[in-house]
Amino acid sequence: MKITRTWNRDNIAQIETLFHTANGYLGVRNAPEEGHVPGSIRGAYINAFHEIVDIHHGEKLYGFPETKQTIANVPDAQTVRLVLNGRAYSMLSDETVDREQTVDTETGLAVRSSVWMHPDGALRVTYTRMASFEIPNLFLLRLRVESVDYDGEIAIESTVNGDVTNYADADDPRVAAEPLRCLSLVSSCVEEDEAMVVCRTLRSGLTVACRAMQGCSLPGSWEGEGALLCGRYEGRLHPGECVKLNKLVVYTDSLRCEDPAEESRRVMREARTLGGYELMRRQKKYLDGWQERTMPRLAAPQPLPEALEYDLYQLLQSTGSDGVGSVAAKGLSGEGYEGHVFWDSEVYVFPYFLWTQPEKARGMLEYRWRLLPAARENARTLGMQKGALFPWRTISGGECSAFFPAGTAQYHIDADIAYAFLQYWRVTGDLAFMAEKGAEVLVETARMWLELGHMQDGEFRIDCVTGPDEYTCCVNNNFYTNAAAQYNLRGAAAVMRALHGADLAERVLAATGVTAEEEAAFEAAADAMRLPRDARLGISPQDDSFLQKKPLDWKALPRTDFPLLLHYHPLFLYRHQICKQADTVLAHLLFPETAEKDTQKKSYDYYDAVTTHDSSLSVCVFATQAARLGDLARAAQGFEATATLDLMDTHGNTRDGLHTASLGGTYLAMLRGFAGIRAEDGGLSVDPVLPEGWDGYELPFEYKGSRLLLQVRGGEARLSLREGDPVDAVVRGEKCRIC
Amino acid sequence: MKITRTWNRDNIAQIETLFHTANGYLGVRNAPEEGHVPGSIRGAYINAFHEIVDIHHGEKLYGFPETKQTIANVPDAQTVRLVLNGRAYSMLSDETVDREQTVDTETGLAVRSSVWMHPDGALRVTYTRMASFEIPNLFLLRLRVESVDYDGEIAIESTVNGDVTNYADADDPRVAAEPLRCLSLVSSCVEEDEAMVVCRTLRSGLTVACRAMQGCSLPGSWEGEGALLCGRYEGRLHPGECVKLNKLVVYTDSLRCEDPAEESRRVMREARTLGGYELMRRQKKYLDGWQERTMPRLAAPQPLPEALEYDLYQLLQSTGSDGVGSVAAKGLSGEGYEGHVFWDSEVYVFPYFLWTQPEKARGMLEYRWRLLPAARENARTLGMQKGALFPWRTISGGECSAFFPAGTAQYHIDADIAYAFLQYWRVTGDLAFMAEKGAEVLVETARMWLELGHMQDGEFRIDCVTGPDEYTCCVNNNFYTNAAAQYNLRGAAAVMRALHGADLAERVLAATGVTAEEEAAFEAAADAMRLPRDARLGISPQDDSFLQKKPLDWKALPRTDFPLLLHYHPLFLYRHQICKQADTVLAHLLFPETAEKDTQKKSYDYYDAVTTHDSSLSVCVFATQAARLGDLARAAQGFEATATLDLMDTHGNTRDGLHTASLGGTYLAMLRGFAGIRAEDGGLSVDPVLPEGWDGYELPFEYKGSRLLLQVRGGEARLSLREGDPVDAVVRGEKCRIC
Repeated sequence: MKITRTWNRDNIAQIETLFHTANGYLGVRNAPEEGHVPGSIRGAYINAFHEIVDIHHGEKLYGFPETKQTIANVPDAQTVRLVLNGRAYSMLSDETVDREQTVDTETGLAVRSSVWMHPDGALRVTYTRMASFEIPNLFLLRLRVESVDYDGEIAIESTVNGDVTNYADADDPRVAAEPLRCLSLVSSCVEEDEAMVVCRTLRSGLTVACRAMQGCSLPGSWEGEGALLCGRYEGRLHPGECVKLNKLVVYTDSLRCEDPAEESRRVMREARTLGGYELMRRQKKYLDGWQERTMPRLAAPQPLPEALEYDLYQLLQSTGSDGVGSVAAKGLSGEGYEGHVFWDSEVYVFPYFLWTQPEKARGMLEYRWRLLPAARENARTLGMQKGALFPWRTISGGECSAFFPAGTAQYHIDADIAYAFLQYWRVTGDLAFMAEKGAEVLVETARMWLELGHMQDGEFRIDCVTGPDEYTCCVNNNFYTNAAAQYNLRGAAAVMRALHGADLAERVLAATGVTAEEEAAFEAAADAMRLPRDARLGISPQDDSFLQKKPLDWKALPRTDFPLLLHYHPLFLYRHQICKQADTVLAHLLFPETAEKDTQKKSYDYYDAVTTHDSSLSVCVFATQAARLGDLARAAQGFEATATLDLMDTHGNTRDGLHTASLGGTYLAMLRGFAGIRAEDGGLSVDPVLPEGWDGYELPFEYKGSRLLLQVRGGEARLSLREGDPVDAVVRGEKCRIC
Repeated sequence: MKITRTWNRDNIAQIETLFHTANGYLGVRNAPEEGHVPGSIRGAYINAFHEIVDIHHGEKLYGFPETKQTIANVPDAQTVRLVLNGRAYSMLSDETVDREQTVDTETGLAVRSSVWMHPDGALRVTYTRMASFEIPNLFLLRLRVESVDYDGEIAIESTVNGDVTNYADADDPRVAAEPLRCLSLVSSCVEEDEAMVVCRTLRSGLTVACRAMQGCSLPGSWEGEGALLCGRYEGRLHPGECVKLNKLVVYTDSLRCEDPAEESRRVMREARTLGGYELMRRQKKYLDGWQERTMPRLAAPQPLPEALEYDLYQLLQSTGSDGVGSVAAKGLSGEGYEGHVFWDSEVYVFPYFLWTQPEKARGMLEYRWRLLPAARENARTLGMQKGALFPWRTISGGECSAFFPAGTAQYHIDADIAYAFLQYWRVTGDLAFMAEKGAEVLVETARMWLELGHMQDGEFRIDCVTGPDEYTCCVNNNFYTNAAAQYNLRGAAAVMRALHGADLAERVLAATGVTAEEEAAFEAAADAMRLPRDARLGISPQDDSFLQKKPLDWKALPRTDFPLLLHYHPLFLYRHQICKQADTVLAHLLFPETAEKDTQKKSYDYYDAVTTHDSSLSVCVFATQAARLGDLARAAQGFEATATLDLMDTHGNTRDGLHTASLGGTYLAMLRGFAGIRAEDGGLSVDPVLPEGWDGYELPFEYKGSRLLLQVRGGEARLSLREGDPVDAVVRGEKCRIC
């Protein structure tokens, strides 16, 4: 499937995001090869490769983080300038016509092509990019210049540049406020047809090597010194002729190897041995397997099938599974939210990998497990004697939120991470991983809840927290938080029981010293968890006081007032009944046992009316829950809005990077909403519905090592085994064995 | 009365605060005349004379202030170095003995004296300082060197220096984090025996002139250029002889006059005409009158009488009444809290002036009235269509709080200011002031409450506010806030009724456009105000959820953990039942009609147990309320703690400046607690009690232009008229006429 756009002066940064090339390790924005142009946010990123910067607080109170991590822009290797008879190619020039930017999810290539109506003759200029799934360190860039009737000189300058800074926008709280130089040059060298710069971050002390090899049909060689190395190639081009440049770029970093420079040499050797064509062939082969294994097929009107495939491709591009990185809010597509990892990873993105590529899902969990020591430290900072509290936003484990009411106070991140661990266990049955790593996270997060909450009048209360909805902060007994904490506490006890039963508890006992009394306390707190229902409205109250707050007639506000957070003081938002995003509706979706169906329906309508969906994490949840509640028209509508959020740039900030939570939400709506696939204590259950306006769909997924296919057409649903052992499942309420 | 201390290396900054000289306009810390020494926080300040500095927010959200005002250190004129035979005097040298620092509340002079055991003979060195109450621009400094048996050369260097910076301490959130240079030199000159520097603040564009004249018994003259001007005097000193230097310093500023340089010339002429001795005589005369008019006399054990007199003297020194400045949290004694004015001014300090020097109290109100336009703007920033919200901390009207949960969210500041206006009206009967200025403030603040709160289920609720207790933030229906808002709303309606009745409403109608419907809405909201009582505990709940929060066994924490705000994350404090300071107890004290006596008693005990008194605004309130509740032992104990808070430096930070709220609290305990003096709709009431361990007391005060004296001895109380018309009062529940 191909997505195609035409670029212009106004959408450069959006194009850079939508057509960036990434592979979970490395991401390169699709910036102009000719160099910086106005409106561009040029950048390349390595998953979790970060700098440390100070946080300046207007009033610094105890425990406020003094520094934060920020994703570092790594050396620029995407500059390949083209000069014909002294005239430089510019993708934005009026001489450039037939502009076309595509990405092909089957080949894994992004192609920018145009026709240059050069005064001395026309040419077709084509740049092709690839971030290799086969060799994740590898970025490939090819230039092809075909003369139609141009006759004259041609020069190509292709560079590697370690002198880069991060992007800044002082006016948007979602982007870093000040330009930042992260890297200093360690060394650079030219070795025959290869050139390399090695840089180190100034404060975090991380090293990155960027090594490029290029072959060109014109004569030329590398030149330069310091941070900027340039390969120059010159010759003549005649009508009907073609000039090509192939550039292989290898990025390596000290988070993942001891000697990045040496490692880059090794990887480059491997890449050169294979060669560009073979690498592209393998890219296609990798994606063939990925398509076959994970891609749902929709018998639904465009743009839905296309958008779904685009979204899942972007999830694949965005997500690291090496345990060092995971998936940032913007993946590897931009610097929005400074490359931080939030709960989006576990609640929105994780399900796609869990149900289709569980080995990658495990990698995401390993990332969190590695951050446990920092999470323990964070809990101490928050005054807790025991347990671990994962930071609201982080790269390497330290809290990076400088505004705790909508940051650190979102304790639910602990339960969200625990939820992912528990779902992994339930879907894969991988008890060994629980023994080794999972149970430690579950026990430490469960302990955090015991520290945070307390029993009063027979109820377990959790006070002064912020739920998912960031327009309502520091409240008591947020329904989502309490429901998620309950799941966390019960799950920790359940996994401990399973480990005791299998005689596998040794490691977690050694690592945490968890006692039988604590395990009982987890259960007791879960059983007593405060999860009230408002009898008058028949809904689950978002928190203890949400329903008493002043209503806000937000639909009467001008569109220019949205998102409200950019136009209203937080105190204004906090005192009104207004939601940025799904909160209680998400609780009902993930933890449907916390409320009757009727309560869920009434809650849906109530919160739908007070939610602005200013967050990109919202519409997908409403769409998914609509499907569960049988409102198939709203479900279809919400799915389309979610699936096309970045492609249509409906939030107006795709320029800063993709909304990975929404991309994941597209899949969540398919899996959880339409297919009704869940795995809980009772095992696998499937309860499919068909969104309004669709003819049917097919959804491949994996469960406990077996590969299954759900086929839905009209009112019919069929679940079949593609590979592996038979699977017991509850399909539309009936127990059956899939074999 | 004299207070005496001995200084040493460890208490320099504390001495500087305790013995600073100020007069409500100008404040000079009692820094070493020899120049900077380690531990000193050298400074001189002009009330409200400020610079503007940026606020850096880690995450800047809509409406967060981008700049703040900060009190500017003005040119240094207190340096008078003494050199004998090439050896410089140092107050900290081992050669300096018999060290004594005093302040005399009768003469208004601060005197530092010591004996210098110079290798060439002994001398007595005495520095005398005065900030003139007669001419507030004037600071006087005298040096007297008496030789006992010293025989040798003597040189004196006395400077005026415009090259000054503000103090900084990166580790304490209550002090500015970074050193700041506020002033740039505009001009400097030497004119015969006078020298002057004129400086301008860099961003706020304010000008200050500092002009010094000095006379010395030794020959010498002014020298120097640029920001540093120095008068040098040299000669010989023989045993038994005495050398004197008299320095008159005049500060003028562009907040109060058009041409500070010219104005300083004029004021200096006036001062010189009077001369130093006459100025000192008038200082004493001023203080004689002040004593007679305002000073309570205690028949109580020391240090109480002394401490009370010291505290009231400091209130006199700290408070401006020219309408340009008021009283900052630290008065004019230091840079703590950056010279910002908080609610302390109205609730803690104002009553002293209101009941003894109402013309100064009116000046404080005029200061707030002048800030109304900025308060209106602040309300708009907070999303309010109407009304005015005074900023939590300010100098010139803009919000300076960079942390809204314990800042801007303290909306009660509006009611606190309204309370002061209403008290002024009730105590003075000055309806003309209400017509001109007061009603405008009352209407605009009352409107703010209508915008902030809302009716639900027959109650007027005020959600997401922070009450006085800063360990419990962003809660619903804080009892204090609601009670104070009720008083504000009712009072606005009452004043409007009075103005309509007297046909004096024209100005306020023109200024605010307030309607009859709005006036009715003020009353309706006040009548419906949510002020619940917890039936189980029999207390007023601090807010809707305080009593449900987790108890904290704070008495088990080590003393080094206090104040808790320096050792615990705000989220930890917020989720526990723990108070920094009086909150509901203050509500009961100021608005006793909001709860039955029994509820007040039970509330007192309940909150006493959960209050750390980490704030200096707390103990005085508990002492005062204890007196009202008849617990005369606790009242006496709390009074002593309050009265000696700075003198004993019990909060450990007197170095940064005096705690003016606590100084005012000392008087509040006398007036409101012991004497039981109030003025409400029903007129004046007096209900005295005698604290345990006291024989009696006398308290002079003024009411509607008449001067009264309350005399309490044992169980007897006598209220008598000293001057003016007869006064109707309710004394110990009985109506009587004082004549």
